Amino acid sequence: MPVSPAPVSPVPVSPVDASPLGWLAETGAEWTADPQILGEKRLDRSGWEPDGRPLAVVFPRTVEQVQGVLRGASVTRTPVVARGAGTALTGGSAAGAGTVVLDLSRMDRIVEIRAADGVAVAEPGVITADLDRAAAEHGLRYAPDPASLEISTIGGNIATNAGGLRCAKYGVTRDSVLGLDVVLADGTLINTGRATLKGVAGYDLTGLFVGSEGTLGVVVGATLRLRTLPAATATIAAAYPDVAAAAAASVALAEARIQPVLAELLDAATLAALADFGMPQSGGALLIVQLDGGADEAARALDVLKRGATSVRSDGDPASLLAARRQALPAIERLGRPLIEDIAVPRSVLAEAVRSIADIARRHDVPICTLAHAGDGNLHPIIVAGSYGSPIPVAAHRAADEIFGLALALGGTVTGEHGVGVLKRTWLAQELGEAQHDLQRQIKAVFDPLGILNPGKAI
Amino acid sequence: MPVSPAPVSPVPVSPVDASPLGWLAETGAEWTADPQILGEKRLDRSGWEPDGRPLAVVFPRTVEQVQGVLRGASVTRTPVVARGAGTALTGGSAAGAGTVVLDLSRMDRIVEIRAADGVAVAEPGVITADLDRAAAEHGLRYAPDPASLEISTIGGNIATNAGGLRCAKYGVTRDSVLGLDVVLADGTLINTGRATLKGVAGYDLTGLFVGSEGTLGVVVGATLRLRTLPAATATIAAAYPDVAAAAAASVALAEARIQPVLAELLDAATLAALADFGMPQSGGALLIVQLDGGADEAARALDVLKRGATSVRSDGDPASLLAARRQALPAIERLGRPLIEDIAVPRSVLAEAVRSIADIARRHDVPICTLAHAGDGNLHPIIVAGSYGSPIPVAAHRAADEIFGLALALGGTVTGEHGVGVLKRTWLAQELGEAQHDLQRQIKAVFDPLGILNPGKAI
Repeated sequence: MPVSPAPVSPVPVSPVDASPLGWLAETGAEWTADPQILGEKRLDRSGWEPDGRPLAVVFPRTVEQVQGVLRGASVTRTPVVARGAGTALTGGSAAGAGTVVLDLSRMDRIVEIRAADGVAVAEPGVITADLDRAAAEHGLRYAPDPASLEISTIGGNIATNAGGLRCAKYGVTRDSVLGLDVVLADGTLINTGRATLKGVAGYDLTGLFVGSEGTLGVVVGATLRLRTLPAATATIAAAYPDVAAAAAASVALAEARIQPVLAELLDAATLAALADFGMPQSGGALLIVQLDGGADEAARALDVLKRGATSVRSDGDPASLLAARRQALPAIERLGRPLIEDIAVPRSVLAEAVRSIADIARRHDVPICTLAHAGDGNLHPIIVAGSYGSPIPVAAHRAADEIFGLALALGGTVTGEHGVGVLKRTWLAQELGEAQHDLQRQIKAVFDPLGILNPGKAI
Repeated sequence: MPVSPAPVSPVPVSPVDASPLGWLAETGAEWTADPQILGEKRLDRSGWEPDGRPLAVVFPRTVEQVQGVLRGASVTRTPVVARGAGTALTGGSAAGAGTVVLDLSRMDRIVEIRAADGVAVAEPGVITADLDRAAAEHGLRYAPDPASLEISTIGGNIATNAGGLRCAKYGVTRDSVLGLDVVLADGTLINTGRATLKGVAGYDLTGLFVGSEGTLGVVVGATLRLRTLPAATATIAAAYPDVAAAAAASVALAEARIQPVLAELLDAATLAALADFGMPQSGGALLIVQLDGGADEAARALDVLKRGATSVRSDGDPASLLAARRQALPAIERLGRPLIEDIAVPRSVLAEAVRSIADIARRHDVPICTLAHAGDGNLHPIIVAGSYGSPIPVAAHRAADEIFGLALALGGTVTGEHGVGVLKRTWLAQELGEAQHDLQRQIKAVFDPLGILNPGKAI
């Protein structure tokens, strides 16, 4: 991947010294040990606090600089925590004592968009929404759209195999990654996958790197699939007496052979938070659906969604119809500190999962508002865990544990799209079982024999 | 996965003996060393001939029997070649001297279709088209549709990450596999992935097994994604003066924001073979497109495809419009023994690839007919390699090598959907590069430390 000269950096750069980090200077990358920046870059958005602070934060602009950092880290056995925008909700990009943070946010060029091939090539620091906007100029879209898409990066999305709303129809990040440029732990650069839409040469290392949370290598470039931008999109917001009715409406769409682009469900607790926030809601549950299959499909969807609904809106602009979903988190954040959980269940038991979560909230006396990507059974129970700055109540942790147990009991998974990080490692072991967990550790050892890549995360 | 009692088998079963294969009897699985069956099961459809014959063919009906076979193979260091219907075109399921063939075709139950979840659970021996038909009863489809779908198995499709026609819109096999039950080399059973549409717990072992050609483990069960069956499908067949015009029409569809389900291109040599076969064709290239986005999309597609076409048909039933594509291989087979190649290139250079292949055919004086999945740039140049039974002409091998070189030179891959098997191993090394190839071998060693799983294949 060609790389242009680095422009001047706005971040304070510490003087080069001959400390244990002297090797960083040899990489040619900008870096800093400024305490304030170390303090910022040790955290992600999970609320999890690692022990201590990283040794330094390095801001590479070229593949060669990343290779230099990994080579130096290998020689000095220094743990490296790669990071995009730091929006992880799992502690996956948190960095504690003794680590070097590899901040890839300045490798932020969209290298090319090959519209006729349906392919884009991007550096890891590109903001996801920027790529989607650039694709739209060619009548294309980058489909994965995590809620963080305006602030999170392609590299971070790849590290966590980020999902989003549109993946009900267009798949998760892994489904849009064709090939990767990856710097291995020893500084070697490899190019996995391909630049074509199809290809089966060798084991799928591309898919293995996607979702590996920086523990197998550092992604420095990505060849991404772009999809056809639909000619038109229709949005429908339907209110129902309860979650069961809303979930049933979502299933009825599938039975009517309609595949929505997104299907977002908000439960009663979320609607109450929105009402307090100045967005009055009707009904006990809201389902917001978007479709891109033409006017006929939209009309059929409207017919299906009307059944059992207390009110249905399909006029108005999509932004207004989606506003309740968009404002849900800000509304919940006003109630207290949110712990955003992330489970997935078979979509037929979605309503049962939402009801059980409401039970868990009552039993532990902890407010929980649940948002769900109904189309794929991915739920985000948001636990309101006391006030900001105070310790997280024990009841909140207990409720979270019960939610993870519920996911497994319903045949689901403890993480639908956020990843494992540090917060879910014990649950991961339970979900995988010992034999598979052991295989995963052996794979980790193949890629990272010295254990310097984001140690203590993901597996 | 629950397994029912095995019905009586029509295959002759040899008397149990105490030979080196005595351990097979302990597994409880039916097996045979009948020379005729060994002779059949040593081959796939590639034409590649392994040295010698396998020791035995075993026909397990339960997961436990597969576990027993792998345990016995590990103890005795016996190489195991897993096999579905043996339709591989690469030598991937060919089995030579000293091997045991693990024929999974009798593990052929569709365990369940959970329509509300959009999920099916199937044993590996299920015929792909049977699963699709079973899904259709619920208004769903199993999207991957390799040309062999009426005879090939889900397990074989998973082993090769099979593609097909509809993957232009709905992705390849890997995109439809949510989770796998896999027996490891030592007989341990693991369950990878999940039963939900989304999930990111741990490294993607599911994706790693898909396409691994039986070299990492034996798939004994699969949890598969089903998709919504479209309300209606439209088919259009358009003839053009040449391949460049047909390829341009395919690109023009994308520019008009139309994503066809399939877009099949037939070159002049293929059309000539069809004419000889009694299916007269007009034009120098044919493009057949199928759409499932409603009447409006079909009308817009027709407008786009008319430009530059010498003739366009959109009435008639889909089977009749697709007949030229379906009959292409039988028509080519009448010219001589077909070597079915399989490359993929960025779709913008599709026409260049087809023209270059025609040049290769002229230079080596070997007939080559090219079919292409135009939507994803996947080409099948079919080399007519002399008459059946005679040695394959050197010129045919040289032409094939030039085609692989062309694929890499155009930024493509040496295999779009058929896999590596034995025939493309040297090209694989070239495509991957040494560092990545070495990583793949290390992954193989993690899963198969004794090297008993389909040795000499895939990597």
